[in-house]
Amino acid sequence: MTSAPFDTSLPLTFLGPEGTFTESALLQVPGAAGMARIPSTNAAAALAKVRSGEAFAAMLPIENSIEGGVPATLDAISNGVELRILHEVVVPVSFVLLAPDGVSLADITAVGTHPHAWAQTRDWFGAHLPDASYVPANSTAAAAHALVAGTDAFQAAVSAPLVAEQTGLNILAAGIEDNLGAVTRFVLVGQPGTLPEPTGADKTTLAIPLPEDHPGALMAILEQFASRGVNLSRIESRPTGQFLGHYTFSVDVDGHIRDARVADALRGLHRVSPGIRFLGSYPRADRQPPQIRSYNADAAFDEAATWVDTLL
Amino acid sequence: MTSAPFDTSLPLTFLGPEGTFTESALLQVPGAAGMARIPSTNAAAALAKVRSGEAFAAMLPIENSIEGGVPATLDAISNGVELRILHEVVVPVSFVLLAPDGVSLADITAVGTHPHAWAQTRDWFGAHLPDASYVPANSTAAAAHALVAGTDAFQAAVSAPLVAEQTGLNILAAGIEDNLGAVTRFVLVGQPGTLPEPTGADKTTLAIPLPEDHPGALMAILEQFASRGVNLSRIESRPTGQFLGHYTFSVDVDGHIRDARVADALRGLHRVSPGIRFLGSYPRADRQPPQIRSYNADAAFDEAATWVDTLL
Amino acid sequence: MTSAPFDTSLPLTFLGPEGTFTESALLQVPGAAGMARIPSTNAAAALAKVRSGEAFAAMLPIENSIEGGVPATLDAISNGVELRILHEVVVPVSFVLLAPDGVSLADITAVGTHPHAWAQTRDWFGAHLPDASYVPANSTAAAAHALVAGTDAFQAAVSAPLVAEQTGLNILAAGIEDNLGAVTRFVLVGQPGTLPEPTGADKTTLAIPLPEDHPGALMAILEQFASRGVNLSRIESRPTGQFLGHYTFSVDVDGHIRDARVADALRGLHRVSPGIRFLGSYPRADRQPPQIRSYNADAAFDEAATWVDTLL
Amino acid sequence: MTSAPFDTSLPLTFLGPEGTFTESALLQVPGAAGMARIPSTNAAAALAKVRSGEAFAAMLPIENSIEGGVPATLDAISNGVELRILHEVVVPVSFVLLAPDGVSLADITAVGTHPHAWAQTRDWFGAHLPDASYVPANSTAAAAHALVAGTDAFQAAVSAPLVAEQTGLNILAAGIEDNLGAVTRFVLVGQPGTLPEPTGADKTTLAIPLPEDHPGALMAILEQFASRGVNLSRIESRPTGQFLGHYTFSVDVDGHIRDARVADALRGLHRVSPGIRFLGSYPRADRQPPQIRSYNADAAFDEAATWVDTLL
Repeated sequence: MTSAPFDTSLPLTFLGPEGTFTESALLQVPGAAGMARIPSTNAAAALAKVRSGEAFAAMLPIENSIEGGVPATLDAISNGVELRILHEVVVPVSFVLLAPDGVSLADITAVGTHPHAWAQTRDWFGAHLPDASYVPANSTAAAAHALVAGTDAFQAAVSAPLVAEQTGLNILAAGIEDNLGAVTRFVLVGQPGTLPEPTGADKTTLAIPLPEDHPGALMAILEQFASRGVNLSRIESRPTGQFLGHYTFSVDVDGHIRDARVADALRGLHRVSPGIRFLGSYPRADRQPPQIRSYNADAAFDEAATWVDTLL
Repeated sequence: MTSAPFDTSLPLTFLGPEGTFTESALLQVPGAAGMARIPSTNAAAALAKVRSGEAFAAMLPIENSIEGGVPATLDAISNGVELRILHEVVVPVSFVLLAPDGVSLADITAVGTHPHAWAQTRDWFGAHLPDASYVPANSTAAAAHALVAGTDAFQAAVSAPLVAEQTGLNILAAGIEDNLGAVTRFVLVGQPGTLPEPTGADKTTLAIPLPEDHPGALMAILEQFASRGVNLSRIESRPTGQFLGHYTFSVDVDGHIRDARVADALRGLHRVSPGIRFLGSYPRADRQPPQIRSYNADAAFDEAATWVDTLL
Repeated sequence: MTSAPFDTSLPLTFLGPEGTFTESALLQVPGAAGMARIPSTNAAAALAKVRSGEAFAAMLPIENSIEGGVPATLDAISNGVELRILHEVVVPVSFVLLAPDGVSLADITAVGTHPHAWAQTRDWFGAHLPDASYVPANSTAAAAHALVAGTDAFQAAVSAPLVAEQTGLNILAAGIEDNLGAVTRFVLVGQPGTLPEPTGADKTTLAIPLPEDHPGALMAILEQFASRGVNLSRIESRPTGQFLGHYTFSVDVDGHIRDARVADALRGLHRVSPGIRFLGSYPRADRQPPQIRSYNADAAFDEAATWVDTLL
Repeated sequence: MTSAPFDTSLPLTFLGPEGTFTESALLQVPGAAGMARIPSTNAAAALAKVRSGEAFAAMLPIENSIEGGVPATLDAISNGVELRILHEVVVPVSFVLLAPDGVSLADITAVGTHPHAWAQTRDWFGAHLPDASYVPANSTAAAAHALVAGTDAFQAAVSAPLVAEQTGLNILAAGIEDNLGAVTRFVLVGQPGTLPEPTGADKTTLAIPLPEDHPGALMAILEQFASRGVNLSRIESRPTGQFLGHYTFSVDVDGHIRDARVADALRGLHRVSPGIRFLGSYPRADRQPPQIRSYNADAAFDEAATWVDTLL
């Protein structure tokens, strides 16, 4: 994809402050690096900017290969005024150890970072700085910014690589994460009205309330996908917040709403669960096209529709 | 239904000769009694008259509550130039014992009828005429006609009640069938082009080849009905005539092709089994409307289609 | 298989008279050629001999690649005192034209045979003896026997090849059937008590009444097979004889009741349809072993049972 | 249930400190009030005490009607040495506003509590103390304890009602939660070996890894439940921590492993997903017995097993 999926004079927003993994993800969207960017403090605040027209779109983490779905994002995009996912980015979770000029490993007695980052680098610190104490920060980027501002609470920060470029801090060690291969998936969320074109390797995100008075309701929902050969790549249950046992399922499926099999599955889902929300069709980050059997391809849907029209 | 489902100067045909259960069934079709009727010797000959334009439509037995589906009819309507079922009639299988003037029960030493009729009246003859011998005939009506023509091979015939009216033979005993409650279902088959209007209590007949290279193919077919809440009232397997294990399924479902759930199921079936044949939508003989859940009603299909259209 | 599937001093029976395709099938059963054989006039009579102990087992046609299932056999083995299929044989349907010494093709003005055989050789006669008239007989073998007995009603018979050996009639033409490749499947039916050993390539036959008060009942039955990876190689619907729309399904599945997946499917089926009948597990005629996924193999069932036992 | 589900000299543990909702839940377990109780700082620490034999069992929150499943508990009981849920308790989420003697509403300028509790009482504070500032605490109970210890960081705490009894602090307002009807479900987790007896109204908890190389794998899992009439009352997806798209499903089903339909479903699940974990069968908090169709009742399973045994 060579052009940006948007064309606007409005800024983009992301989970801040500057230098977070979320900003790294945003910078991977074609065209985003040249646009104005404003940080937000949480998912709800970021989407409020989009809904009010203050920002064109918001980049948010939606899923982590270790922690699972990000509830704040899933709930924020599934409720309230309708929004659409425009783009997805998958970012490796890789940490660097940053320090100001003049600080070497031997000088470090305390390290600042977000609790999740500290949890995911325990092995490296056990091996290399077993005696370093931990100082919590609100984000990995905030810890680095505190170093720049001259804090004396700690001498180094665990951060995303992006923040090194932005702050000029020195990288004392890179790739210090314990789980090699961990990734986080981010989505760029904007207002409805901009449906990205099908690319042949697309994803569609849906929020599907489980009908309450229906035994086997989840199977009824899955059958709507199965009977059209639509594959699910993510499924997360979220409580509706009313009673135990009442869920909305957040799912990603292979394909674009302009693919006949996806559109037909959506029609079937709307009958079974009329509260369904369409949260967007957008290009897959990995560009992998799905395998489609001939009887689930657009041509088969067209021929079937033509046949029935002829009979009528 | 007060008017005939057809309007034509062509005759109707039926499995003859005159006086068969098939002719009885034909006379129950509104308007048929006033039209020209010509007998045919078998299902293929009757449908040939329809296909060639010699007859407007043919009445044929399709299913018997004791013997099962009638293979000759099922195969004849499923293969060759396309045809449509226009009407169905269900006739109780009730036999009478007929004889010419002057013949009483005590005079009977031999009885003529079709082998099926003889098989289905064994109990009555065992109780009332245990010593009567059996003379096979080509149809129940043919045996009665032979009596009229003066045969001396037998003194009485087992026939449908209709033939008594037509021939003037005397009814020595009525209701002599062993299986009370047995019925035969007949269908009136014509050319495509005349789709009966939906009545709210309709039936649709289909011939669905089982895809050969597909494990679980029958389940895939049944799921197309189940996912739209379409109920099956008859299912018969017929061999394709090529190899053991290759079948076409002949099915009746509740509903009319103009019902959204039936049309949608047909689209799905055409994808899974492109060789499917539509054999007609027509009023149910029993006038019983089906129970439809709200999410399978036309309104739910309309709303779902509108929703997807709006998204696109 | 080198030994007979039976060990008895009782005779075997088959659909007679001598020289039928059914006797040909019986002679293919290992050990049968050396045993006494008695003909029966129909399926019910043959099974009556087995049930009464007059015969050890009966050979009957069950399925034809052109005509479909043989209703008389399907119904006779599914009702009444329980029986078991012990063996299956698949026989190519190939006809010969037989005549006594001194008769050549040019001499033939009339041909005797069973109506099915006449129907299946129409092309050959149209090409080679277009003027020959047809004389019906009760079986292909009966026509040949009539020639031996000196009938003057016809000069030649259409029969199974076996009858030529048995009668000494001359073969004027062989392979005269119109459908090359047509086959008939026969089964040897005996009393319960003799369960053939599993061979790794077996078949199991069942009669499963469709529960009446159950929407989606056929799917519920098929799911019992699907959930254990049991493949269906034949499925035939038969009416129960009570009402339209009430069926018993006659099915063949891959595997032996001693295979864990088959036994487990039978348990599930018995719950859904308690009137189910087990009609035997026996070696497949084609010796083709089924493809079984590891999670449907005996080991997986054993491990699962052990796991649950441990928990309890 | 009148007796305790355990009999031991070991203490019980719970998420501390004293006065949390978790301790409230623990005190509802019959017999628990009379036993030694020790707080733990998190789920992993609590279960470590159980696994090491330091505590008999641990009470942990597993599901909240607003927030959804509690990931820390779900993951802690699904991984590591096997454990079993012995008991469940459902506790209404109801908050009180506590203060020391001499403090009235008008005196409050700052309030201490856990962030979740603060989030769930926003409406009440907006209406009654709109100018109060917020001071975060590690738990609702910790804030109350700080008041007892004489903190001057805040004048009041939002806590569970239990802590009022334990500390003697005064209740200035009760029922101040925004979501009336919100509940949290807690489970008492112990070592395997103590399987609670079936009561007729039981629940079974499972952790089922989704097989990776299996399209339609989730449907295959759900079918194992559906084919035995086992109803799901909770389903939560948890990432396996290896790759995006790899999940373990945490589910609760109606019934006890000693119910035949549950045991049979477990056998089927073990085949499809051999890594399945059984996490216990225990009485439902609400004592509601499930509706079971006759063909899914123990008797139907017994009859089916007997039938197959007889055939073998």
